[in-house]
Amino acid sequence: MVELPLAAVDRIIRKATGIRVSEEAAKALTDYLEEVGMNVSREASVYAKHANRKTITDADIRLATKK
Amino acid sequence: MVELPLAAVDRIIRKATGIRVSEEAAKALTDYLEEVGMNVSREASVYAKHANRKTITDADIRLATKK
Repeated sequence: MVELPLAAVDRIIRKATGIRVSEEAAKALTDYLEEVGMNVSREASVYAKHANRKTITDADIRLATKK
Repeated sequence: MVELPLAAVDRIIRKATGIRVSEEAAKALTDYLEEVGMNVSREASVYAKHANRKTITDADIRLATKK
């Protein structure tokens, strides 16, 4: 999946560290963040369904990211 | 920090789950992913410096996300 813009992830790395970043590094972090995002989303959807809702809310996301 | 576009994170959630997502849920996941991205970046920069490099590479990112 290609959803998160590479330039945005590149800025996150540079803001967090202040040092240079290879393009491959930004790509690797983009892939990782998309994977984390999908895993959190799937878990959040289980919590939404468990609460008899058809919409994922911020509470579902927070529960899924609490661990 | 506001770097990752909300619309992109919204698409990740909908692609991963196929159900509806509140705007607050997309915001919550965006915040979380930016936080994860910053933490991974900081750890990767430690590995880059440890290897006497001034540029973060994909190998640093992979090492930081391996756990």
